[in-house]
Amino acid sequence: MPRYKLTIEYDGTPFCGWQVQAGQPTVQGVLAEAFARFCGEEVTVSGAGRTDAGVHATGQVAHVDLSRDWRPDQVRDAMTAQLRPHPVAVLAAERVAADFDARFSAVKRHYLYRLVNRRPDLALDRDRAWRVPKRLDAARMHEAAQRLLGRHDFSTFRAAECQAASPVKTLDRLDVARDGDAIRITTSARSFLHHQVRSIVGSLVRVGEGVWSPDDLEAALKAADRRRCGPMAPACGLYLVGVDYRPDEAPAPGG
Amino acid sequence: MPRYKLTIEYDGTPFCGWQVQAGQPTVQGVLAEAFARFCGEEVTVSGAGRTDAGVHATGQVAHVDLSRDWRPDQVRDAMTAQLRPHPVAVLAAERVAADFDARFSAVKRHYLYRLVNRRPDLALDRDRAWRVPKRLDAARMHEAAQRLLGRHDFSTFRAAECQAASPVKTLDRLDVARDGDAIRITTSARSFLHHQVRSIVGSLVRVGEGVWSPDDLEAALKAADRRRCGPMAPACGLYLVGVDYRPDEAPAPGG
Repeated sequence: MPRYKLTIEYDGTPFCGWQVQAGQPTVQGVLAEAFARFCGEEVTVSGAGRTDAGVHATGQVAHVDLSRDWRPDQVRDAMTAQLRPHPVAVLAAERVAADFDARFSAVKRHYLYRLVNRRPDLALDRDRAWRVPKRLDAARMHEAAQRLLGRHDFSTFRAAECQAASPVKTLDRLDVARDGDAIRITTSARSFLHHQVRSIVGSLVRVGEGVWSPDDLEAALKAADRRRCGPMAPACGLYLVGVDYRPDEAPAPGG
Repeated sequence: MPRYKLTIEYDGTPFCGWQVQAGQPTVQGVLAEAFARFCGEEVTVSGAGRTDAGVHATGQVAHVDLSRDWRPDQVRDAMTAQLRPHPVAVLAAERVAADFDARFSAVKRHYLYRLVNRRPDLALDRDRAWRVPKRLDAARMHEAAQRLLGRHDFSTFRAAECQAASPVKTLDRLDVARDGDAIRITTSARSFLHHQVRSIVGSLVRVGEGVWSPDDLEAALKAADRRRCGPMAPACGLYLVGVDYRPDEAPAPGG
């Protein structure tokens, strides 16, 4: 069966997350329904990241096996039609080798967290960013963020229900940058714990407000204790923006 | 009565435009209702630009007269509360002189038009940008756009129902720039005719598709004939991003 790699964009607002749950709207569920309408098959669309309810994606990656050898652009265009009216789009489809696995072949995941630092409500970015009224020191947040880079036990920033085998992860990038009222937090790692990015963002906001120093953030990390985490940032500001694979996981020839 | 200048952001999607219409949801209408709840007064909120249904703003400017001398930050914060749940936000309130008029004192208006040049539907930017599937040559669009700068009879790019006294306007800026799939068209003028920006954008897309040359666009302008306009771009991509005033129209002392 030919395997396809899909690059997927979605507005997470109306969904109970990526993963199929009986009786609930999910991104994986609407993709499976769209494939059923397109090619009459019951398929499983396996994603690189199981985003939570309300979390968005501009570059989620998934794989799917189809019984017919469709051209990749046929898959993309058919899905555009079949996914309507859901706010989910297949941006690209590629043929990949049978051992490509969107989740297990991934070597790096990239997330963006969007904050808007202002008092008035968000009109255009409602459900697209987290509004923080109190003035934040983004430079200090960036400085503190660098203390979290590298290999650590991230238990402080891990959801109680996280199913990862180990709380030890390697954080490759955690940048905080202000542009006017907008603060963008970009982070990359091979993999993340459940709620890790939102837990880190909430803790960085404590630093930005001046409640915590960079040393306090580092102490919270070293404590490896969930009770030391700042209040978790809401889902609506989080975007899965990309997933990297090894070059030998690139599209199959002619794909 | 103290006069206030308001800077306003809104998502135009649920509204039948800026201007009050009986029985229809309008931005001006929800602002007037919010002021009525805030200070018990029936006010008219006069805007710099009467945006159409579906058109957004990040920097609409309006003025309003209130009978009490509220602090500007009180006005802004009260409106944040009273405007909920509408996607309209007062970003700033300032005290201005009694002769400040948001519409007639304006010396320049700035609009942004957002295109996304791709085949798949927009998931995150639905109602926020115009998706154009056919590949556009943005550099050629920019080149052609420069032919429209300056003082011209813009009858070609004017709605039949436009109420301006004259079709002659001076276009100060019309830039087209690509960033990946996104194409941003930014334009500035003292004032615009009704549907002028959307008519110009639709005609520039003809150039970008290769259907029109820059010479064809210039010939359409010179014809001063509405029938020579390209298909009008949809409202959802258009944003009123700012309005400029003369320095002597700046906030009153202590405002």
